[in-house]
Amino acid sequence: MKLSQGVEWSVHCAVLLAQGPPGTVASRRTLAGFYGLPEAYLAKHLKSLVRSGVLHATSGPRGGFRLARPAAEITVLDVVEAVEGEASAFVCTEIRQRGVCAIPAEQCVRRCTVDRIMQDADDAWRESLRGRTIGEIARGLSPEVRERSRGYLAENRPA
Amino acid sequence: MKLSQGVEWSVHCAVLLAQGPPGTVASRRTLAGFYGLPEAYLAKHLKSLVRSGVLHATSGPRGGFRLARPAAEITVLDVVEAVEGEASAFVCTEIRQRGVCAIPAEQCVRRCTVDRIMQDADDAWRESLRGRTIGEIARGLSPEVRERSRGYLAENRPA
Ligand code: FES
Ligand code: FES
Repeated sequence: MKLSQGVEWSVHCAVLLAQGPPGTVASRRTLAGFYGLPEAYLAKHLKSLVRSGVLHATSGPRGGFRLARPAAEITVLDVVEAVEGEASAFVCTEIRQRGVCAIPAEQCVRRCTVDRIMQDADDAWRESLRGRTIGEIARGLSPEVRERSRGYLAENRPA
Repeated sequence: MKLSQGVEWSVHCAVLLAQGPPGTVASRRTLAGFYGLPEAYLAKHLKSLVRSGVLHATSGPRGGFRLARPAAEITVLDVVEAVEGEASAFVCTEIRQRGVCAIPAEQCVRRCTVDRIMQDADDAWRESLRGRTIGEIARGLSPEVRERSRGYLAENRPA
């Protein structure tokens, strides 16, 4: 089981935007350049972040991306689910209803215990990520890092 | 992010063995037949379960697989990690040390906050699975299901 690299990239891009003044806009190139990311691959994830309502895309000559709401209201889960989707990592294929001792479908009204245990774990994972916000991460960075990020965002503001 | 189908198969095979009397042995074919699983694919997962110390393989004409310890001492996490490995689903590639504003390595003594948040969630997931056992699942099955499983295991005992 492995998460896409886009998770690390996307959380960090959101954290970068959260370090600028509210409403900070940055182009795809600016975001990619800050972390040395391949711009074409990052594009796909930025689209997902827009589609999920984490980022807002502005078009035109001053176009780019900004956080769609205050960073304190964007959870890490919001970003992770934008990239990975909301589907559970475990998918029950109802094997209890197959094979030589198959349980008849009418006796399978309740979800299989194994499925429930796996979903409980998935819930615990999401719950953990739901408790942390992009704003909290940005605020926790060292003053030097935040200063450098702010300077970079200001210098590269869409003209 | 998606778990291998082998997780559903492996947990269920362990639960099946747990329904027999202690020391119950079942062949690969018997395990696969119970749930209608492809025997060749299941073989790979049974090997992983043996390697991880969840199952014990017995060879010879009466060979097969049995639980390596009491079902109450085998957690769902033991089985899931046998199939999926123990590595976290999130891998930090230290992008903070790359790009135009790279943080120098000597300033990166502490793990990145994003990495820590992702590992906390991974820990929560494992913790949840560590709290549930194969024995508990087997005991929770309906009397009819357990009766049928026991009958099947007895009929198919390696000769
Ligand atoms: S039948 Fe799918 S998890 Fe049990
Ligand atoms: S640098 Fe990898 S998660 Fe932050």
